[in-house]
Amino acid sequence: MLSYSIIGMGAIGGYYGGRLAKAGREVHFLAHSDYQYVLQNGLRVESCDGDFCLPHINAYATQKDMPKTDVIIVGLKSVKNHDVLPELLRPIVHQNSIVILIQNGIGLEDDLQNVFPGLQIVAGLAFICSAKVGPGHVSHQCYGSINLGNYSCQQEKFEVLLQDMTDAGIQAAEVPYLEARWKKAVWNMPFNGMTVALNTSTDKLLKNPATRQLIYDQMMEVIGAANALGVNTLTSEFADKMMQMTDEMVPYSPSMKLDFDYHRPMEIEYLYSRPIAEAKKVGFEMPKLAMLEAELKFIEAQLNS
Amino acid sequence: MLSYSIIGMGAIGGYYGGRLAKAGREVHFLAHSDYQYVLQNGLRVESCDGDFCLPHINAYATQKDMPKTDVIIVGLKSVKNHDVLPELLRPIVHQNSIVILIQNGIGLEDDLQNVFPGLQIVAGLAFICSAKVGPGHVSHQCYGSINLGNYSCQQEKFEVLLQDMTDAGIQAAEVPYLEARWKKAVWNMPFNGMTVALNTSTDKLLKNPATRQLIYDQMMEVIGAANALGVNTLTSEFADKMMQMTDEMVPYSPSMKLDFDYHRPMEIEYLYSRPIAEAKKVGFEMPKLAMLEAELKFIEAQLNS
Repeated sequence: MLSYSIIGMGAIGGYYGGRLAKAGREVHFLAHSDYQYVLQNGLRVESCDGDFCLPHINAYATQKDMPKTDVIIVGLKSVKNHDVLPELLRPIVHQNSIVILIQNGIGLEDDLQNVFPGLQIVAGLAFICSAKVGPGHVSHQCYGSINLGNYSCQQEKFEVLLQDMTDAGIQAAEVPYLEARWKKAVWNMPFNGMTVALNTSTDKLLKNPATRQLIYDQMMEVIGAANALGVNTLTSEFADKMMQMTDEMVPYSPSMKLDFDYHRPMEIEYLYSRPIAEAKKVGFEMPKLAMLEAELKFIEAQLNS
Repeated sequence: MLSYSIIGMGAIGGYYGGRLAKAGREVHFLAHSDYQYVLQNGLRVESCDGDFCLPHINAYATQKDMPKTDVIIVGLKSVKNHDVLPELLRPIVHQNSIVILIQNGIGLEDDLQNVFPGLQIVAGLAFICSAKVGPGHVSHQCYGSINLGNYSCQQEKFEVLLQDMTDAGIQAAEVPYLEARWKKAVWNMPFNGMTVALNTSTDKLLKNPATRQLIYDQMMEVIGAANALGVNTLTSEFADKMMQMTDEMVPYSPSMKLDFDYHRPMEIEYLYSRPIAEAKKVGFEMPKLAMLEAELKFIEAQLNS
């Protein structure tokens, strides 16, 4: 059985870390503002699959006190990947550690691998509606499965990890790495930025014929980029499916819109700059998403000025 | 000597009409809300070239009372071109009338010609800083020249018009029609819409590196469209010149930004939809300006809902 560390005790880290600990796995939680609270009260998960409490968890105020573990699950915002994440990981990874990045965007694994050449990295794509509603308190409303894309993990190790998570009651499945990342980008790139740029919600963007077409055009830019990068399984049918799925959703504020609303830094780099740059390297332009990137950079600069 | 009618007694119509009347030309003004005021007080122009007052002008509350004239100068917002302008023109044009459209955008002359097949139409591109500051009161701060592009005017008639305006003290010059319209679009299309989309001013857009590049890319889309439509004299040097000129300008709100601020309809059709459609007809795409068009349509729909 593998040992786990959870970096980022929010909606994602709190939920999956909680599931693993509940199943008896060795789990270590890095808890910043929550530290004193969870030390005394543990972790509470209200879940559509059944509530549970963990009165005692291994919580730490700093990574320097944490042991090295086999698997590190990262649920941080990607804005912290350059300056904060390497410092968090350095003391807790051993020679054979696997890091799972449950984050939005393109290029995250490449950048982390550059800093830790020997590290085994896995992309985690969570399909879950959950929220952190208080200190040591996660509310899980629906779904909960996680797709794992193997970036640089030994395949036999990867399968042990997959089995271990499944045994802990987490619906985990292997997906092709690049395809999985770009599939998520098809929804993320249009909706995250456009809800910020026009200060609105997903349903209003789809109701207006002009922005509905724009969102679709942007989805097709993402699919075109993915195709240019060798992901040939993505076609316009997937864009059609994403449009239909969003039509059926309740009005929704994507994570970037929430970051904008609460004046937190936006994940512009990994959600926009990197995918646009990766596509450009192979000669594919994404003009409408590049324009959105510029608008978001302007909006962020105005908020900070 | 030609007789004149002025449709739209604002910053443009008031100034050029005033100049012509001051020089003794026969000028008829259509004055809506100003009618009672100008009937009693006339027209006042404060100008960097010398103030002047016209205590008595030929003012009308409705076009139905106006005589037919040789030249009709239109300074209306182009949002009124479909439903209002034909009704205003019908009673006052004669068989040989010339209409000068001093309006922003692309496609204005085509549309008017479709309604009035025999009409002689001229594009007027005014380089003037003027504002209507009160009833019958125009303030002219600087510049004042007008470039005339011959769309469908008999050339000998066009030259009489040009001479007549010059004799009245207006700096008027002939320019190639299509080139002149597209040259104006190089500045108008990026700045009018972007100041609305990001609710900002020209200087802030140029100060931020991301939006500065975006503005330049959009200018190059306009130049590409113009080239595709046969205007081969427009090159990237003109975009460089427009960037530099705007750098040297005081922070500025383009007309569409003022329309947005005062909750007036925006000239989206002739400033965006038409030029984008004209370019598309010859196979040239303007993706960033098409995205801006969609954003503006969304913003206008939200304002009206």
